[in-house]
Amino acid sequence: MTIKALLLNASLKSGDEVSNTESLMNEAVSIFNKNKIETEIVRLRDYNIAYGVTADEGKGDEWPQIFEKVKEADILIIGTPLWLGEKSSLATQAIERLYGASGMTNDKGQYIFYNKVAGVVVTGNEDGAKHASASILYGLSHIGFTIPPNVDTYWVGEAGPGPSFIEADGKQNEFTMQHNQIMTYNLIHFAKLLKEHPIPTEGNVVKN
Amino acid sequence: MTIKALLLNASLKSGDEVSNTESLMNEAVSIFNKNKIETEIVRLRDYNIAYGVTADEGKGDEWPQIFEKVKEADILIIGTPLWLGEKSSLATQAIERLYGASGMTNDKGQYIFYNKVAGVVVTGNEDGAKHASASILYGLSHIGFTIPPNVDTYWVGEAGPGPSFIEADGKQNEFTMQHNQIMTYNLIHFAKLLKEHPIPTEGNVVKN
Amino acid sequence: MTIKALLLNASLKSGDEVSNTESLMNEAVSIFNKNKIETEIVRLRDYNIAYGVTADEGKGDEWPQIFEKVKEADILIIGTPLWLGEKSSLATQAIERLYGASGMTNDKGQYIFYNKVAGVVVTGNEDGAKHASASILYGLSHIGFTIPPNVDTYWVGEAGPGPSFIEADGKQNEFTMQHNQIMTYNLIHFAKLLKEHPIPTEGNVVKN
Amino acid sequence: MTIKALLLNASLKSGDEVSNTESLMNEAVSIFNKNKIETEIVRLRDYNIAYGVTADEGKGDEWPQIFEKVKEADILIIGTPLWLGEKSSLATQAIERLYGASGMTNDKGQYIFYNKVAGVVVTGNEDGAKHASASILYGLSHIGFTIPPNVDTYWVGEAGPGPSFIEADGKQNEFTMQHNQIMTYNLIHFAKLLKEHPIPTEGNVVKN
Repeated sequence: MTIKALLLNASLKSGDEVSNTESLMNEAVSIFNKNKIETEIVRLRDYNIAYGVTADEGKGDEWPQIFEKVKEADILIIGTPLWLGEKSSLATQAIERLYGASGMTNDKGQYIFYNKVAGVVVTGNEDGAKHASASILYGLSHIGFTIPPNVDTYWVGEAGPGPSFIEADGKQNEFTMQHNQIMTYNLIHFAKLLKEHPIPTEGNVVKN
Repeated sequence: MTIKALLLNASLKSGDEVSNTESLMNEAVSIFNKNKIETEIVRLRDYNIAYGVTADEGKGDEWPQIFEKVKEADILIIGTPLWLGEKSSLATQAIERLYGASGMTNDKGQYIFYNKVAGVVVTGNEDGAKHASASILYGLSHIGFTIPPNVDTYWVGEAGPGPSFIEADGKQNEFTMQHNQIMTYNLIHFAKLLKEHPIPTEGNVVKN
Repeated sequence: MTIKALLLNASLKSGDEVSNTESLMNEAVSIFNKNKIETEIVRLRDYNIAYGVTADEGKGDEWPQIFEKVKEADILIIGTPLWLGEKSSLATQAIERLYGASGMTNDKGQYIFYNKVAGVVVTGNEDGAKHASASILYGLSHIGFTIPPNVDTYWVGEAGPGPSFIEADGKQNEFTMQHNQIMTYNLIHFAKLLKEHPIPTEGNVVKN
Repeated sequence: MTIKALLLNASLKSGDEVSNTESLMNEAVSIFNKNKIETEIVRLRDYNIAYGVTADEGKGDEWPQIFEKVKEADILIIGTPLWLGEKSSLATQAIERLYGASGMTNDKGQYIFYNKVAGVVVTGNEDGAKHASASILYGLSHIGFTIPPNVDTYWVGEAGPGPSFIEADGKQNEFTMQHNQIMTYNLIHFAKLLKEHPIPTEGNVVKN
């Protein structure tokens, strides 16, 4: 059984800059690799993602390239930094664009994100991780993803300005690292479970 | 296979008053009944629930009675009204008390809420349903519940003061009723799935 | 000119227990004292506050005693701990009860909370301060309080379980202490400003 | 006394498309006009706003043009549509960029947004207005804006898909229209008040 994981990094920085969020996301990647999950990280900032709420806004919109990857994936993780206690504008944009596909269905007539599982990775120098996690996990759940238990991995430091994840050596934070382990394994467990036992159609078919 | 559903109504009204939220929750109950799910609705306001973040605050605290029901349940739905766009204080209290058991584990060493699934029902005369849903579903997910897709059923009216669910005849709202159907069936599907295929322990055991 | 400040501590602990939140609130009190502001801290847990959304729920409800203090106050601070990244159930209840007076007006026909200013103090062992602040400040603003700049004072520690404000010696956190100073002075400045120059009635009279 | 109001419309649509949010924002503009307030609406989508958290990201970033207008303004209104119950990605971006100036000070050493007042206008076909308002007003308050009472004007329809503000003839909604009137007048009242009586510097100077 092949399981594919896609990690979208919504850092405001482009791929040629070091991302604290990606550093924590890489901890999930390590576990995916150990478990032979096909894994890809996409830095959203490197794509020209159009504003809008459709699956394809045309005219140079590069979201459709990302959306193809989402459709192929069994596991989706959205990673985001925190600004003023909120997920980034790029994370917001990713949710808007995923929402643009909320009318699509699979071949059984269920929403297209059925049988896919989702988690979230958040880093900030302080405060906001749970709020950003709640927002992202809710949005994904609302459009059809399954949310296994404990799939919100985050690191934040003490109140006020301070070092970010890498500089603060956040990998020494046992809570964060244990949470990352639980998240990643639960995503794998549920992806496999839903591959072997897809969600029955009774009661949830929206179109044919 | 016996599946049990517990619905906690966090209305601020006691059980001798009509609750709009319960009226919508009863739509889920109908579907549970049709599917031979053992179902119980608890009106939180009828219990003397102590403030605190433990599983048992002693001295007349009646939360432990409710918590026994939660432990028995495979499916948990929290229903809440909206006040100023937020879940009720009783819903907040229920989350605090459930969180008080977040250190407990099942016989495999996973969090005690593993293999249980959760959903949310929200009513208000206007605005706030998604925010309250995100907060409740996130809190439950963070302590070990599984969140199937589309388990946020809600009704709200147009901006401003106006009739509540019952008076507004919210049962005529196709979106709300369809969402209730999808929620209830997905809760049943996942409860059965996890009963037959409990979450493997790899990576998520926190204690022995 | 006499200015009165009322601080409501929504800790889940009663007044005979040490409250981390109150420890930080006392930093605001020190500045109020230095500036001859009449100041009172109320521990909400010590009152029998009924569930509901009216100003007086009758039958042993002790909220009216607190509400009298609110009506007398020029400055209101709500202090709250964090549980699962959210304000406490008692903070939620205080907002619900204040909302219960949202139909009351002053002698000019403006909402009763006009010309009063509000701020918030939050402590938690980790994460959630901005989200709780946003919720509380918004709620108060929506019912008529004025929100001066920078009136959200908070302390949280690094992600994961850890010491709370007192044990962590949060008073050494320069950001938190500076923010407390700015908050408290801005509350005083605006309370005085609105005492001398009450909000004109043009456009905002809701009843006569 | 000249008072300037700037309204940033964070619709995902460009200026050649009809914006429901702008339609409601225009109701505020009418009142500003009647009161001889110099008013400008900016459609954010028409600018090439770079991702980032500085005041100027260089390389074709057009945010600095907008930021000049913000610096000139006494009143700032952010208007946003709702997607999945959240403010738009463009609203998030505007907040990120404003936050990029949070280290700047006025000539007295206070944050640069001191003595400016802010409000919010939200439209959606359903649900999310209070959450989006709380997020935006909190963010602006946290960086130095003053939030007068009742400055959250919104319109949303009943739960589920349905007509947006214009098609639903939201201007007939008395609550929304009254709230718009109160918001706009309170913004004017406070802008004048702070122009005549700027916030004293005691306790809130962060740099010299």
